[in-house]
Amino acid sequence: MTLAAGPIRHTVAFRLRHPDGSEPERAFLETAATVLPAIPGVDEFELLDEVSPKNDFRFGISMEFADQAAYDAYNAHPDHVRFVQERWETEVEDFLEVDYRAR
Amino acid sequence: MTLAAGPIRHTVAFRLRHPDGSEPERAFLETAATVLPAIPGVDEFELLDEVSPKNDFRFGISMEFADQAAYDAYNAHPDHVRFVQERWETEVEDFLEVDYRAR
Repeated sequence: MTLAAGPIRHTVAFRLRHPDGSEPERAFLETAATVLPAIPGVDEFELLDEVSPKNDFRFGISMEFADQAAYDAYNAHPDHVRFVQERWETEVEDFLEVDYRAR
Repeated sequence: MTLAAGPIRHTVAFRLRHPDGSEPERAFLETAATVLPAIPGVDEFELLDEVSPKNDFRFGISMEFADQAAYDAYNAHPDHVRFVQERWETEVEDFLEVDYRAR
C-alpha cells in the first residue's frame, strides 16, 4: 500500500484476557507503556481507557509516526516484534487497528 | 454508565455508500466538517482518512468533550440529531464508535 507523505496516527482498541483490575492486567499495560513509546519514531504515545458502551474494547493505544517509513520501522523493530510475540498474542483477547491521516 | 470526570475523545471510523471521490462523498464530508464542529462542546474536531489495510473503514471523525455532560449535550443537540437522521443513517454503510479517556 502506498500512502502519501504525512503523519499517521496509529490506534489500537483492545480487550485483554485478564480480569479487570488484576495484576496481570496492570503488568501488561505497564509493559506496553514502557516498551512501545521507547521505540524510535513513536510520537504522541497514549495509553487510554476505551469507554464507549457501543463496542467491547476496554483499552486503547494511540501513537503518531512522521510518515510511512517511520511506521514500517516501528513494526519491524525488535522490541515491537518481541512485545507482539511474547505479550500481545497471548494476553489480548480481541483488537482492532484504526489508522488515520489528515485529509 | 457513569464515567469519571475528564475529557473524552469520541471517534467514529466509517465507510460511505458513495463511490470514492464522488460528488456525494465530497458533499457528505463537507457537511460533516461544517455542522459537527459548530455544535457547542465540540473541541479538537478532525475529519480524517482511515488508512489501515486491516479494516474496511475509509474515513474517521475525532472530537473531544470536556466531560460526559458535554458529550451528552452534543448527542442531544438538534443539529447533531438532524445530521444523524438526514445524512448519517442513509449515507453511511458501516461505522464503529470508539471513545477514549486518559487512564
